[in-house]
Amino acid sequence: MEKLTLVKVGGKIVEEHASLKQLLEDFTKIEGHKVLVHGGGRSATKMAERLGVESKMVNGRRITDEETLKIVTMVYGGLVNKNVVAQLQALGVNALGLTGADMNLIRSEKRPVTNGIDYGYVGDVKQVNTDLLASLIAQGVVPVLAPLTHDKHGQLLNTNADTIAGETAKALARVFDVTLIFCFEKNGVLMDENDDDSVINNLDKTDFEKLVREGVIQGGMIPKLENSFSAIDAGVTEIIITKASSVATEAGTHIKK
Amino acid sequence: MEKLTLVKVGGKIVEEHASLKQLLEDFTKIEGHKVLVHGGGRSATKMAERLGVESKMVNGRRITDEETLKIVTMVYGGLVNKNVVAQLQALGVNALGLTGADMNLIRSEKRPVTNGIDYGYVGDVKQVNTDLLASLIAQGVVPVLAPLTHDKHGQLLNTNADTIAGETAKALARVFDVTLIFCFEKNGVLMDENDDDSVINNLDKTDFEKLVREGVIQGGMIPKLENSFSAIDAGVTEIIITKASSVATEAGTHIKK
Repeated sequence: MEKLTLVKVGGKIVEEHASLKQLLEDFTKIEGHKVLVHGGGRSATKMAERLGVESKMVNGRRITDEETLKIVTMVYGGLVNKNVVAQLQALGVNALGLTGADMNLIRSEKRPVTNGIDYGYVGDVKQVNTDLLASLIAQGVVPVLAPLTHDKHGQLLNTNADTIAGETAKALARVFDVTLIFCFEKNGVLMDENDDDSVINNLDKTDFEKLVREGVIQGGMIPKLENSFSAIDAGVTEIIITKASSVATEAGTHIKK
Repeated sequence: MEKLTLVKVGGKIVEEHASLKQLLEDFTKIEGHKVLVHGGGRSATKMAERLGVESKMVNGRRITDEETLKIVTMVYGGLVNKNVVAQLQALGVNALGLTGADMNLIRSEKRPVTNGIDYGYVGDVKQVNTDLLASLIAQGVVPVLAPLTHDKHGQLLNTNADTIAGETAKALARVFDVTLIFCFEKNGVLMDENDDDSVINNLDKTDFEKLVREGVIQGGMIPKLENSFSAIDAGVTEIIITKASSVATEAGTHIKK
């Protein structure tokens, strides 16, 4: 199988001109087929402020009412996605910006009210259709995915970008040898969160569970790693958790079968 | 050559829920390959108002400063485009939302200051690259084009939707037997602008020039028809100018070679 690298970057990196420019230059250096998945939460929050729409977060997840859905559709699907595409095109990368609605790429279902929390227009991924996507990738196209999906009944849904990255990586693993790179602010999963040099270079599930019990790994890193192990179980070759500036070097925490 | 119908609809139709729903149902009935090009100016103006950004128009064209470019990127590329895509998917149409930056579909150049008017981030179309697009269309994909292009140097540009429709129709005419339908508020080009039943069913260039001299055809219809004749000269089989509600019936004003 041909190698494919799927890079997921958060909002902070794609929303600042200098860090985005650097990321896209590094991303361009990655050899072989590639896919970029981006967030955009900070820009959405800023736009909501300008429009006088309150941003409600529960456990780090955005409550997406009708007005907020409009904002994330504009910001993720329009502003962030199309600027990334235009800048990649300038670097000679044949980027194609997509949401899960485009070519019915990612079908989701509106999350039911859970433990009394109504997340609103938030989608849980049900199906990833990669036939056309894989064919485009094989022709040299580089998909740029915004964190939006649809329910196939006309409703767009706000969807976690880590989940989109993980589920798309799993689906593409049937056709490609997939490496999934999750970028965040640190050099990798750290033994000591205050020491950016304490990167755990290789992590397996047994170690992960032990480090969670010991409280070394905590917070938002836990679902990110659970996603990672589930992706490995589903056929993704390797996951790398690292800083955006390391996407071309493959430094960071490596997770393999 | 296989038949392809390219429909261009203005902002008014795609921005109101009921008229959009009707349009998409009619569009779905069109047989064979198809492409939809949409505007979104009214939504952009409304969003600009909410954000406290002044909308400046000269000769019916939007002056696109940096803030306005952000707004049209959000509204055309995100809000309008992705909602149309999601609704077409619900109707079983395999829609794919695109700007001219995606797959380098439409490269444009920033319009130079003309007669002392600086239109800002407005693009004049230079090149339409339809190889990948034609291949997707042949596989059953229905492209939905937002009126945005790029300069291949990282800059998105606001571009007239009629121009995008005309230039894309011309480029696709090399591969398909193309009918281009321009939708607007009336039943077609009228002999008497106050009588919606006075449709000119067939119009050739000689008649057009005569009717312009006589003042029967005027205003925004003149560039629309000039675009149409130029598209016919460039290989488009037929142009139809009609009401959005007639896209599936082919009523209206017909222009052929």
